Amino acid sequence: MAETAVLALGGNALIREDQRGTLEEQYANALAMALSVRSLIRKGWNVVIVHGNGPQVGNLAIQHEGSIDLVPALPLFTLGAMTQGQLGSLICLALNEVCKQEIAGAVSVITHVEVDSGDPRLSEPTKPIGPFFDRSEAESLAANRGWTMAEDAGRGYRRVVPSPRPMAPIEADAISALIDLGYIVVAGGGGGIPVARSADGAYRGVDAVIDKDFAAERIADAVAAQALVMVTGVAAVQLHFGTPRQQAVTEMTATEARRHLADGQFPPGSMGPKVEAAIEFVEATGRISAITTPELVYATLDEPAGVIAGPRGTRIVPDPVPALIS
Amino acid sequence: MAETAVLALGGNALIREDQRGTLEEQYANALAMALSVRSLIRKGWNVVIVHGNGPQVGNLAIQHEGSIDLVPALPLFTLGAMTQGQLGSLICLALNEVCKQEIAGAVSVITHVEVDSGDPRLSEPTKPIGPFFDRSEAESLAANRGWTMAEDAGRGYRRVVPSPRPMAPIEADAISALIDLGYIVVAGGGGGIPVARSADGAYRGVDAVIDKDFAAERIADAVAAQALVMVTGVAAVQLHFGTPRQQAVTEMTATEARRHLADGQFPPGSMGPKVEAAIEFVEATGRISAITTPELVYATLDEPAGVIAGPRGTRIVPDPVPALIS
Repeated sequence: MAETAVLALGGNALIREDQRGTLEEQYANALAMALSVRSLIRKGWNVVIVHGNGPQVGNLAIQHEGSIDLVPALPLFTLGAMTQGQLGSLICLALNEVCKQEIAGAVSVITHVEVDSGDPRLSEPTKPIGPFFDRSEAESLAANRGWTMAEDAGRGYRRVVPSPRPMAPIEADAISALIDLGYIVVAGGGGGIPVARSADGAYRGVDAVIDKDFAAERIADAVAAQALVMVTGVAAVQLHFGTPRQQAVTEMTATEARRHLADGQFPPGSMGPKVEAAIEFVEATGRISAITTPELVYATLDEPAGVIAGPRGTRIVPDPVPALIS
Repeated sequence: MAETAVLALGGNALIREDQRGTLEEQYANALAMALSVRSLIRKGWNVVIVHGNGPQVGNLAIQHEGSIDLVPALPLFTLGAMTQGQLGSLICLALNEVCKQEIAGAVSVITHVEVDSGDPRLSEPTKPIGPFFDRSEAESLAANRGWTMAEDAGRGYRRVVPSPRPMAPIEADAISALIDLGYIVVAGGGGGIPVARSADGAYRGVDAVIDKDFAAERIADAVAAQALVMVTGVAAVQLHFGTPRQQAVTEMTATEARRHLADGQFPPGSMGPKVEAAIEFVEATGRISAITTPELVYATLDEPAGVIAGPRGTRIVPDPVPALIS
């Protein structure tokens, strides 16, 4: 059976920073992403895609706020579910177009991810989402909607929501079955729809946003993936970033990566969570993780450092097993 | 292997006519629907749910129009994809809550449905969708967005879109595999995301709405379902509706149903398409179809007319095979 790679794609893989997010822009970006996936498929990998949804859910939040007098605004986890439909369809159409010779098809599974209702992060809204508001709008939203609003880098006020750690995807068995049938599976979009068990044992939506890199790690673990790749805008992780000692990392062990993380080498809002999710996957499974651009995914995954020439991304690998002294 | 029933649920099964569509309202309605599904599961049926999305996609269209200055409005087929995520999540959570003893789980598959790019219905926009506009707004939308606007029963102007006939669900094999694993599968929401093959062979979204009853028929055929049920607000199909001769039908053959349809017994906008989709399924497969309320689904499906007492819905059955004269 082929090995499986889980790719965690940033939300701005589909709406770039200089784009407003028309369908044409998003589809063109999805086609570019699909070409990278095809390289992996041709190397014999199965692929699962976990996409972000930051720009899309931000747009949807603006639309919900803008028509609040006419249509009830739905909770955040429902907006997340809507972006799973939106981007799941878009990504599957692009994959079916580009990879139609290689695969049974691409299929998108609406994915819920369980969080612990006792997670202390649920009572600490820290993650900014959606549009900026001025101070008086922010005060009104806090009063009328019960939202927590926070000033964001002097650019205005944004809603902040909790970002709990994911435990497990509810639909893991369905996703695994579809991988085994030869599908590229799109799952856990936007980090998954967060749910927690209520007192009666049923899952209820939670108004929070799960980090998509941590969600991808849980999905990769649940489907017994061989590799977890954080697909991002930079070719490789850098040490001593922005200093004369800056240096790209082509390979590091989980223990080395943890030490760099503890040393503050990776900023909390961007590279930090990616490295942390990568370490968690490698430690939990003994398999490999990578952080790189779409173009370098297959070169980075398939060969250890030094085996192939040319630009490459960062691999995080298990600590070596100590040699026995005879 | 258990037999499969495909249930086609009206869009207002989740937002009733006197409701605005808060999450709480929609979830309460989904729980009621899940109880009906549980009755079927306990009788040994596998279940696939094809839901409508009329009220939800209408709300989303209002929100997209309301914020057009800030956020690009996405095409209609993308709004349909978003409602698949929204309602797929809602329905799966309700099914998992109500049926957790009975099933592996409920899972929602984003579903594209192929239409024929040569279907003449694609050049005849007839199906009204979304909000009402006044005459000057309608003229502006027609000029600026290229929409076809039509007056609707004196209540204002609405966008009208084409409603092509569905050919086949793209994700049929994935849906079948999940049924075989014991999942309740939510598929083809809103009639499916309409796609047509372009000149280069790739599927492209089509700005149209597929009737969900006809889509459910195609899905039922593709997954080799034993029964197709149109779940609606009335217990049974009526002949001579609104006259002294009005009479509920508990069972009719496909040929009888076709004759009543040709006689104009069933109005085009409501019962007509349900009866027509039911006939198509029975004629294509030799299996049975039913039209009834959620509460009466299992009684109507499981027993021929006359076997059990009490209220029941309408069964459409294959024509009897002529007896051989010896």
